[in-house]
Amino acid sequence: MSILLISPQRDPRVWVESLKRFDPDLDLVVYPEEHDPEEIDYAITWNHPPGIFKYYPNLKVIASMGAGVDHIMKDPGIPDNVKITRVVDEQLSEDMSTFIMALVLEHMRNISFHHCSKSWEPRTYLRTGDVKIGIMGLGVLGKAAADLFLKSGFEVSGWSANSKKIKGVHTYSGEKGLEMFLANTSVLVCLLPLTPQTENILNRELFEKLPRNAYLINVARGQHLVEQDLLEMVDNGHLSGASLDVFRTEPLPEEHPFWTHPKVSITPHIASVTHPGSVVPQLMENYYRMKQKKKLKNLVSLKKGY
Amino acid sequence: MSILLISPQRDPRVWVESLKRFDPDLDLVVYPEEHDPEEIDYAITWNHPPGIFKYYPNLKVIASMGAGVDHIMKDPGIPDNVKITRVVDEQLSEDMSTFIMALVLEHMRNISFHHCSKSWEPRTYLRTGDVKIGIMGLGVLGKAAADLFLKSGFEVSGWSANSKKIKGVHTYSGEKGLEMFLANTSVLVCLLPLTPQTENILNRELFEKLPRNAYLINVARGQHLVEQDLLEMVDNGHLSGASLDVFRTEPLPEEHPFWTHPKVSITPHIASVTHPGSVVPQLMENYYRMKQKKKLKNLVSLKKGY
Repeated sequence: MSILLISPQRDPRVWVESLKRFDPDLDLVVYPEEHDPEEIDYAITWNHPPGIFKYYPNLKVIASMGAGVDHIMKDPGIPDNVKITRVVDEQLSEDMSTFIMALVLEHMRNISFHHCSKSWEPRTYLRTGDVKIGIMGLGVLGKAAADLFLKSGFEVSGWSANSKKIKGVHTYSGEKGLEMFLANTSVLVCLLPLTPQTENILNRELFEKLPRNAYLINVARGQHLVEQDLLEMVDNGHLSGASLDVFRTEPLPEEHPFWTHPKVSITPHIASVTHPGSVVPQLMENYYRMKQKKKLKNLVSLKKGY
Repeated sequence: MSILLISPQRDPRVWVESLKRFDPDLDLVVYPEEHDPEEIDYAITWNHPPGIFKYYPNLKVIASMGAGVDHIMKDPGIPDNVKITRVVDEQLSEDMSTFIMALVLEHMRNISFHHCSKSWEPRTYLRTGDVKIGIMGLGVLGKAAADLFLKSGFEVSGWSANSKKIKGVHTYSGEKGLEMFLANTSVLVCLLPLTPQTENILNRELFEKLPRNAYLINVARGQHLVEQDLLEMVDNGHLSGASLDVFRTEPLPEEHPFWTHPKVSITPHIASVTHPGSVVPQLMENYYRMKQKKKLKNLVSLKKGY
């Protein structure tokens, strides 16, 4: 049996190198090179061609190369008996947390405004005590971000679909908790997994529950955000602005109004980039666990979708 | 006797309001309104006209409105018997620390580059573990900054003229320690007081002792930096860039090459702005201490110059 590496939109070479460095004898097939689908039992994947896995009768596990699995879950053609795993990587969590901190501090201190403006225009700024961080999504990434903000002296709230407790964080959950969470947030950070329940969750109705002058940071998925609703709420002055790292279409099309909007700041999906060397060990651990019929790590719940 | 508020380059109104709120009966004279110099025993000041204090025969204390006292010390006409005090303000330290953090994270994650560029150009980024923070100046501000970077998981070194110990920080001191400190620093943060010993300390000779691709952040005083040396070291590729908040002439003149240099980022002296409400209580405490012939707080050493 062989491992299939299937990631047609990324250069697979660094992944192949990392996998071969981990195990030089690994029987590895890189899609789309010629191979016998019956020989594949484990697929390491990012943005596979939808529907393709039904041609792999002996496939047991689809392992996401990153923290997100929405690229797998959105494919209705995943065979029922196949297990899905994701990557949980401390480096990913750290990169994500420091990136969110960079965006929050940039917003508070108007760093990009000053760096871009090329003229001497001091502005009043927000202090740590003026800001209430509200994190949507309290999984591994959300908890790591909450922790960094707490350590740096910020007031932090968190919201998740199901109730969670985190020391030092005001946590809220479910539909009922959302309103109170939003009322208590001045910088909203979206770190939710993308599921049918969370798609379009960042919409006008939600923004209206934030206090006036609140700021949005989306580092999760572009599909969480109703773009037109954001533009309206920024233009009517209810939101003070937004910093977006993810978009419904990536790269963000050249003609998109976000590019030139004075209150919308764009980064090109750079919050956290998976480094092969950092996650190959856990991809391989799950491969050996599968072989030994042991319980897989970081198994995705098909019901929850993450 | 009266207090003299003397700050001709700043709008004094918020200061007058804060002082009057603290003590409505305060006998306060705002320079340059007409007054009898013999009546003044306490001067609250920022950038006073040099030489002016020799006309105040009964002056006992000159209180700086901010953390820096270089604007007082550079005046050779300060009478010998007058004591000089500075402000030590937690809010100032917090503002300074978060501002430095904002600049460091901006540098690591290329935030301004992306926000300014208006096009989809992902770049590789620096991680927390890739960066060695080196702080020059380990006074109140330097210690607060070191503390924030430590809490956020960074490796931190510090240098000061005289030996200091800070838990978790690699500290170096004096001429001898400088070389080792610089060799161990990839992001150099200048938080030194401005004295004859530290003027022009950020020069070619110092930059050459930093590892290649090191980055400079100056949030202390413009006079610490030899501007031409920085430009040369950035242009020859030894330094990767610099973020400057302070300048020899402020506002930075329109025609200055820093404005348009692609590797030099400018902010208009905004690291920490003294808020009158936050420091008036300690200015007044020292006033009452002076009246009661008690020891003053935050007295400046005339020998050290800070």
